Amino acid sequence: MKTRNVWILAALLCGQIGVQAQEALPKEVKVGKERIKARHEICLPQIDDYQLLKCDFHIHTIFSDGIVWPSLRVQEAWEEGLDAIAITDHIEGQPARRGLQTGNHNYSFDAAREEAFRRNIILIKGGEITRSMPPGHLNALFVEDLNVLDQKDYMKAIEEAHNQGAFIQWNHPGWGVNEIKWHDVHEELYKKGWLNGIEVFNEFEWYPVALDWVNEKNLTLLGNTDVHDVIERLYDFQTTTHRPMTLVLAKERTEEGIKDALFNRRTMVYFYDNLMGKKEYLDKFFWGAVQVSPVYYSSEKRNYLEIKNSSDVPFRLKKVDKARKGYPERIEIPARHSVTVVLSKDDNNTGKVQYEVENLIVSPREKLQVALF
Amino acid sequence: MKTRNVWILAALLCGQIGVQAQEALPKEVKVGKERIKARHEICLPQIDDYQLLKCDFHIHTIFSDGIVWPSLRVQEAWEEGLDAIAITDHIEGQPARRGLQTGNHNYSFDAAREEAFRRNIILIKGGEITRSMPPGHLNALFVEDLNVLDQKDYMKAIEEAHNQGAFIQWNHPGWGVNEIKWHDVHEELYKKGWLNGIEVFNEFEWYPVALDWVNEKNLTLLGNTDVHDVIERLYDFQTTTHRPMTLVLAKERTEEGIKDALFNRRTMVYFYDNLMGKKEYLDKFFWGAVQVSPVYYSSEKRNYLEIKNSSDVPFRLKKVDKARKGYPERIEIPARHSVTVVLSKDDNNTGKVQYEVENLIVSPREKLQVALF
Amino acid sequence: MKTRNVWILAALLCGQIGVQAQEALPKEVKVGKERIKARHEICLPQIDDYQLLKCDFHIHTIFSDGIVWPSLRVQEAWEEGLDAIAITDHIEGQPARRGLQTGNHNYSFDAAREEAFRRNIILIKGGEITRSMPPGHLNALFVEDLNVLDQKDYMKAIEEAHNQGAFIQWNHPGWGVNEIKWHDVHEELYKKGWLNGIEVFNEFEWYPVALDWVNEKNLTLLGNTDVHDVIERLYDFQTTTHRPMTLVLAKERTEEGIKDALFNRRTMVYFYDNLMGKKEYLDKFFWGAVQVSPVYYSSEKRNYLEIKNSSDVPFRLKKVDKARKGYPERIEIPARHSVTVVLSKDDNNTGKVQYEVENLIVSPREKLQVALF
Amino acid sequence: MKTRNVWILAALLCGQIGVQAQEALPKEVKVGKERIKARHEICLPQIDDYQLLKCDFHIHTIFSDGIVWPSLRVQEAWEEGLDAIAITDHIEGQPARRGLQTGNHNYSFDAAREEAFRRNIILIKGGEITRSMPPGHLNALFVEDLNVLDQKDYMKAIEEAHNQGAFIQWNHPGWGVNEIKWHDVHEELYKKGWLNGIEVFNEFEWYPVALDWVNEKNLTLLGNTDVHDVIERLYDFQTTTHRPMTLVLAKERTEEGIKDALFNRRTMVYFYDNLMGKKEYLDKFFWGAVQVSPVYYSSEKRNYLEIKNSSDVPFRLKKVDKARKGYPERIEIPARHSVTVVLSKDDNNTGKVQYEVENLIVSPREKLQVALF
Repeated sequence: MKTRNVWILAALLCGQIGVQAQEALPKEVKVGKERIKARHEICLPQIDDYQLLKCDFHIHTIFSDGIVWPSLRVQEAWEEGLDAIAITDHIEGQPARRGLQTGNHNYSFDAAREEAFRRNIILIKGGEITRSMPPGHLNALFVEDLNVLDQKDYMKAIEEAHNQGAFIQWNHPGWGVNEIKWHDVHEELYKKGWLNGIEVFNEFEWYPVALDWVNEKNLTLLGNTDVHDVIERLYDFQTTTHRPMTLVLAKERTEEGIKDALFNRRTMVYFYDNLMGKKEYLDKFFWGAVQVSPVYYSSEKRNYLEIKNSSDVPFRLKKVDKARKGYPERIEIPARHSVTVVLSKDDNNTGKVQYEVENLIVSPREKLQVALF
Repeated sequence: MKTRNVWILAALLCGQIGVQAQEALPKEVKVGKERIKARHEICLPQIDDYQLLKCDFHIHTIFSDGIVWPSLRVQEAWEEGLDAIAITDHIEGQPARRGLQTGNHNYSFDAAREEAFRRNIILIKGGEITRSMPPGHLNALFVEDLNVLDQKDYMKAIEEAHNQGAFIQWNHPGWGVNEIKWHDVHEELYKKGWLNGIEVFNEFEWYPVALDWVNEKNLTLLGNTDVHDVIERLYDFQTTTHRPMTLVLAKERTEEGIKDALFNRRTMVYFYDNLMGKKEYLDKFFWGAVQVSPVYYSSEKRNYLEIKNSSDVPFRLKKVDKARKGYPERIEIPARHSVTVVLSKDDNNTGKVQYEVENLIVSPREKLQVALF
Repeated sequence: MKTRNVWILAALLCGQIGVQAQEALPKEVKVGKERIKARHEICLPQIDDYQLLKCDFHIHTIFSDGIVWPSLRVQEAWEEGLDAIAITDHIEGQPARRGLQTGNHNYSFDAAREEAFRRNIILIKGGEITRSMPPGHLNALFVEDLNVLDQKDYMKAIEEAHNQGAFIQWNHPGWGVNEIKWHDVHEELYKKGWLNGIEVFNEFEWYPVALDWVNEKNLTLLGNTDVHDVIERLYDFQTTTHRPMTLVLAKERTEEGIKDALFNRRTMVYFYDNLMGKKEYLDKFFWGAVQVSPVYYSSEKRNYLEIKNSSDVPFRLKKVDKARKGYPERIEIPARHSVTVVLSKDDNNTGKVQYEVENLIVSPREKLQVALF
Repeated sequence: MKTRNVWILAALLCGQIGVQAQEALPKEVKVGKERIKARHEICLPQIDDYQLLKCDFHIHTIFSDGIVWPSLRVQEAWEEGLDAIAITDHIEGQPARRGLQTGNHNYSFDAAREEAFRRNIILIKGGEITRSMPPGHLNALFVEDLNVLDQKDYMKAIEEAHNQGAFIQWNHPGWGVNEIKWHDVHEELYKKGWLNGIEVFNEFEWYPVALDWVNEKNLTLLGNTDVHDVIERLYDFQTTTHRPMTLVLAKERTEEGIKDALFNRRTMVYFYDNLMGKKEYLDKFFWGAVQVSPVYYSSEKRNYLEIKNSSDVPFRLKKVDKARKGYPERIEIPARHSVTVVLSKDDNNTGKVQYEVENLIVSPREKLQVALF
């Protein structure tokens, strides 16, 4: 019979692992292993004919209170599989630090541009108009020249941005305030068409009330990192596979395509294992990712089938229809995995069973519902 | 006896992750988190109209010198995304151990069958005819009754297997021998049509000479684990994402489909990051997984493009045509990643550049070649 | 200035990674890498002069309803850094499965013994007396002969065990019952001295009420896996670094040393990141692991110091004394890490600040308290 | 501007892990989990009465051709368990980039200082005198004022550094040259006492010839990262647990203690799993980490014992004395693990068996030898 001596075997194999170091010695040679610079391709289902572009519209660099050079933001985005970023340094109170020059708010965009060309990343010119609440912080995206936004009067700054055709995003409306509130100034901006979207997710937190505003007032839904540190240091990629981001349903992978989608509210937010957005989009997303197999085996008391999830987003399902017995209360389908579902044959009811997808969020009070089996 | 329903248990636990700190104490409650039992779906490209079935045709259990109950082999296979396994306990010298009954070689198949139905795993009945070299160990696959293979004379055993329509695989021809050799008995079996394939890869080692035999004598190429221990203990899934396996190009996902493919030599071997097989299959596999983008950016001296790998198999490319300057000597494309390729504009030659795919093995002396750019 | 071409560099390095495969081809060689079989040494602080032995007193094998051969239980224990295990197959209703011999309950102990000698693992002979509740399942540990425990009348079985000098453990008192209850029979066993300890933690769940019983009735506290599957498949070692276990404060690393400690109630339970036990032991454990540095830096408004945790157990601290301002509400100190603590200088109070160590459990209503700063 | 107190934030988040599902929705709450900022304590054995300080003496920032703000270098070092760093931006050709001010080489030191105080990291003032080879790049460490080193004539710059009491390190002598060579100018600097040490390891490569120079000329041995990017992006902490570093045998954990050790050549280099240094230090390091147990079990033909490695450095041993049979050819002892050693009883020779520790490097031709069993 085939037997094996682990110690000997281990010994044999160790020899090959160590080989490199020995050969290294006679000559100058590299040791160790640099991580191959490669782009992680995030796998998400198609929604209609739109490309699902992965975007982060709120990013800082050394040129405000961030700690890295702008070109790194492009490299990070490329490695993580993003399509577009906006570098949005604070316009006020520059330079943030000793040793930096002052007076030109376009430095960070310029410093990242060549890397963006090389990495095929869409780099959107933007800046953050920074005031205490109200109105709080506002990002102006797709602007021509940031220097003209450096105004004492923030209304003037926002108007300048608007006149340049900017998309105006209200950043982290609930951050650092005791009560999240839609102030008169927001109403005014909204009426003027100078408030186009709200950052419902920011860095680590999200603002359910703001999601209601987006739904009620028909604004654009956004979620971004607001990163100041290095992305890999801010998010633990053992815990989550990706940074929080805005998914943009674009007709084409261009800056224009993104601008069109933002102004037409074709977005979702993807944070940790959660997706937030219009019911219609979430439903198409779910059914683009998930397949339920027919019953492949039937024992005396049970039916066996399989649910497959081809996407990078796991799904957590919870049974809504408590009356229906013999169906699992909960089903978790990890990314790129399948799970076996065992159904009791006792259930005589017919018709599908309603499940709530706990991580697909339509509103603070509503999750996507899907009918299974 | 304490029994357990994984699905229910998993369900219960999912709901309670994290509850511990706040609510665990006053009442009886689950703590911790069981790993969700899910099936990892291996992502490989299509080859023509064939399904690429993931199979392991050499597995042991408690009923020979393995250490686990047969049904676990089905669970392991299911979790790892396999489609089919053959449990092939040694036929000779049973029972291996005190406490086991003797006299019935079909125990292990019977003990795994129900689990195979539940998991939708194709369970192939097989056994290992075990002798010292020559002829060494031979697996008989797709047999009716293993007990009739329990013969003093191994030729008799092989003939019995053949008469039952078995596919006969020569296992690990280079294992435990000083010299790997095609003995007269192998020639005899081969001439009789009683030797249908060779296990060129076994557990941790492969046998280049045997790959030549497969190619020269037009036999079926196979690679299996020969697992005795638990799969997760034998292979470190931090180091490799999958067990070594035989990829079967089947017309349908059935036992018949696999049998047809084996007898018609439609197989490849997938071990660590390497694939072994006919040039035609490897070429279709590579181009099914890889896309080369057009040049998306052109600087003064360089052109930039991207190579994307959508499969779970990384590729390591090495430039063959040394004369061609300005092309990277090596390109590594990790699984599900893209890499940026920077081409110098100096090269005035036209036409594609030849690369060798180091991990796609046609023969001990030949790797797949592809033309790029 | 030093600049770098990632692509070239990556290329150079790739070459060395791939080397092995190329050289492999001309001759028969091992490829891949077997995980080195090594014993993970769990790092826990000393408590007085006792050795802290890592033990699992509830384990199943193929000889009841487990799925692995007994010797694997020893290998698992050794690799995970345990000192002792008891294999405790169900005594009733053997054999569990077709293909196994019947009539000898000592098989599993005998089958694991040689491996225990080789691995220097203390193997304790035990069995599980299995009835529905009451009395539920009871483990008899340190028995001579298991066969005499195979009795129709469970009282007879327990008496036999007791007469062999066994330590009797009530297993998972809350498992599979609607209400966890101290029945008359438990009172009777307790009075007779036939009930020595309670398994307050089992597999994934623990029973706070049972912890009260242990404290009130002065019984021995135990926590075990009750593993039927493979340990690595039952517990996700990405989520937890170790199996749940009983920590035994032994005078010597021998079976006698363990038996003495169990009968004298010198135990703690270690599950996930939690420890459960007598306040005295937990307090010595904490201060054996943790060091608080003096203030190493003092800015205008803040003092800076460091807390270091040298053990494999993280600690989660929560401030109890709400009145004291300027101290962190929560402090997490991961295993083998230090954390910086920033104290405001505003606090004029003197004296230490009370913190509750959330993961050191004295009773369902009490955590260990420590005084810091 | 949006600023953040990591400690408070971490505290807030710790309490809320898992809350999400149940309570997140109705109100504003944090979701996800920030990686707890903690310092990984590297576990290395004591050598005599010296503290083994973990140092990196070659680091760049935004103020030369690095891409991060200086304070991040302190945070990285603290998290990785280092004791001291020197930020050594290139002195020549500043500023490297548009948007940075010019004319003050002390910016990077000043910008990191406060963070160094808070993190209890020893921050050494240094700069890199940068010329093509010869003399190549030289680090001046422990300088007062970097601006005076900004000289056309590099000899003048080195003299200035020397006059400030600087320790002069020749950086990566083999980097970017066809042939590594000890030029006349190095001889001159050496004679003058203006060349105190050599960086034998740099980033990913090491220079065996330079190790000979260190040994022959009695210079100080150094190994550093020369990091320009973010440490976590440069080194894959899945592949290696730590950055390459210089281990300093210091009498006290102060800048003076380090300076004294460097000038007195009390250093080792720790890169990947390798250690480089004087035989005496390596020997004490090995025996400070490793314990060989007595034989704990003796079967008919074999003796069993255990080797334990308590440090964070694995050891790879290879038998030197081929004549001695029955001893393993190779032994690998992973960090914080033990391995079982099985010795045949056939060997009648007496006396210890010589092993070479492959990853403890004395010279390009010599590894540390140890006598076992």
